[in-house]
Amino acid sequence: MCSPKVAEVVRERIANEGRPNLSRRGFLRMGGAAAAGIAVASLAIPQQKAMAYGNLEEVVDLSHVFGTTIPTYTPGEAPTRADHVTVEANGFYIQKWELYEHAGTHVDIPAHFIAGGDTVDNYPAAKLLARAVVIDISAKAAEDPDAMVTVQDLEAWESANGEIPECAAVFMYSGWESRWADVDAFRNPDADGVMHFPGFGGEAANWLIAERNIFGIGVDTLSLDIGASTTFDVHYAILGAGKFGIENVANLTALMGKADAKVVVGVPRWEEGSGGPCRLLALV
Amino acid sequence: MCSPKVAEVVRERIANEGRPNLSRRGFLRMGGAAAAGIAVASLAIPQQKAMAYGNLEEVVDLSHVFGTTIPTYTPGEAPTRADHVTVEANGFYIQKWELYEHAGTHVDIPAHFIAGGDTVDNYPAAKLLARAVVIDISAKAAEDPDAMVTVQDLEAWESANGEIPECAAVFMYSGWESRWADVDAFRNPDADGVMHFPGFGGEAANWLIAERNIFGIGVDTLSLDIGASTTFDVHYAILGAGKFGIENVANLTALMGKADAKVVVGVPRWEEGSGGPCRLLALV
Repeated sequence: MCSPKVAEVVRERIANEGRPNLSRRGFLRMGGAAAAGIAVASLAIPQQKAMAYGNLEEVVDLSHVFGTTIPTYTPGEAPTRADHVTVEANGFYIQKWELYEHAGTHVDIPAHFIAGGDTVDNYPAAKLLARAVVIDISAKAAEDPDAMVTVQDLEAWESANGEIPECAAVFMYSGWESRWADVDAFRNPDADGVMHFPGFGGEAANWLIAERNIFGIGVDTLSLDIGASTTFDVHYAILGAGKFGIENVANLTALMGKADAKVVVGVPRWEEGSGGPCRLLALV
Repeated sequence: MCSPKVAEVVRERIANEGRPNLSRRGFLRMGGAAAAGIAVASLAIPQQKAMAYGNLEEVVDLSHVFGTTIPTYTPGEAPTRADHVTVEANGFYIQKWELYEHAGTHVDIPAHFIAGGDTVDNYPAAKLLARAVVIDISAKAAEDPDAMVTVQDLEAWESANGEIPECAAVFMYSGWESRWADVDAFRNPDADGVMHFPGFGGEAANWLIAERNIFGIGVDTLSLDIGASTTFDVHYAILGAGKFGIENVANLTALMGKADAKVVVGVPRWEEGSGGPCRLLALV
């Protein structure tokens, strides 16, 4: 039984009222009116939080919608889309997309900076499933948009939570996510066009590579490095060591204090890809 | 420790020999030469089978490479790609893609056939993590390319394995995957251009919807319905009931006999998407 999914099942039944081939059996065997009662209270729960695998784990969606008005590191690299066929005109619906690999919630794979490095299609699948750690630097980022994750931040996290686990994805939470809908606020360029947003520091990246056995890192901003970086130390360190980096991550606060949190980096196997748009899902 | 990952870590260290910021500490604490010895024997293991989350579960990659020469249901809908920037010319590497949503290993979401149905960006994330069941019809598909999954096939699976679990993705394995690299053999059109490949039968789809509480279905062919279908009964039934369908699935034999197999449908949150390319990963 996946009884905690009652709200979702009921919502689905409601949404599909009157559609062909619909059975009420699943609804009825969950308790009919009683289930509907639960649903009324539960429909307000954000969709990104719900149970998966039939009640084994809770899912948190760490992905922004991949849309045409999203902020990008380089202006002009947001995706575009158009109807290819539609239900009304053709009987079924398909969009056509044009996209650059480093837009939206997406992965950087070694080949993005390292000539001859692994590409997405040959990157080991098992490395896409990681333990999740969130380093919260939102307090200092609120004061300083050039704030970065330091070795001291990592050590402070370990003092409170124990050693960063093997096979972890270590995420920076800077609070930058709240600016996502405002391209200019998210990119935050100064008068000279230099962007200012938080990221990892090079020393912290090197410490993670040298001292811990991580799978990769992630940030809630446009770049693993701070926006003002010109040397891309973190990109070179992380990708040079065969790790992945994930940019534009959402909803990281939902993972805080969850010692057993895990993430799945659902990146399509983009042929010879330098990285690419992905679905990032957490299990807590 | 994620010690079963030694082979992968060593391979990574070897691949990164001499690169900047690389530490040997992780390698050394795994046992140095001994680890290297294990690696020699393990390097031949296919990449799609490895441990995730630091040794908790085994990963199977159910995804084909998303490339430019793949078979598509409608000719001309394979993706295209081009270098946008390169490490050699620009210091970093990004490709630009043009794609249609129903190419490669991909998901069908209700809006693909149902006007007003859920799109990818608002489809509940928790439904993307499912229990996995594989119905093997490869024997009859080898004799008849129009073979379909029947209610009897589902009942036979249940007789051997117990009831299909709640929250399952039910996959058809027809053996068609072996034709993937040959567009014409995979599409298998007759003299009139009508394709012939296996799929679900409409009665089996309706039975799953009415009698079991599934999340969706999947096939190792180009369509949930058989290639010769003109009525798309399975698409209408599955998508009309709010379920998902996954097409062009790979490596399903690795899930057979695995009672606790689970799948993660890693589909980017394509804005107003009818479905789209995804990473399909199984945990066994």
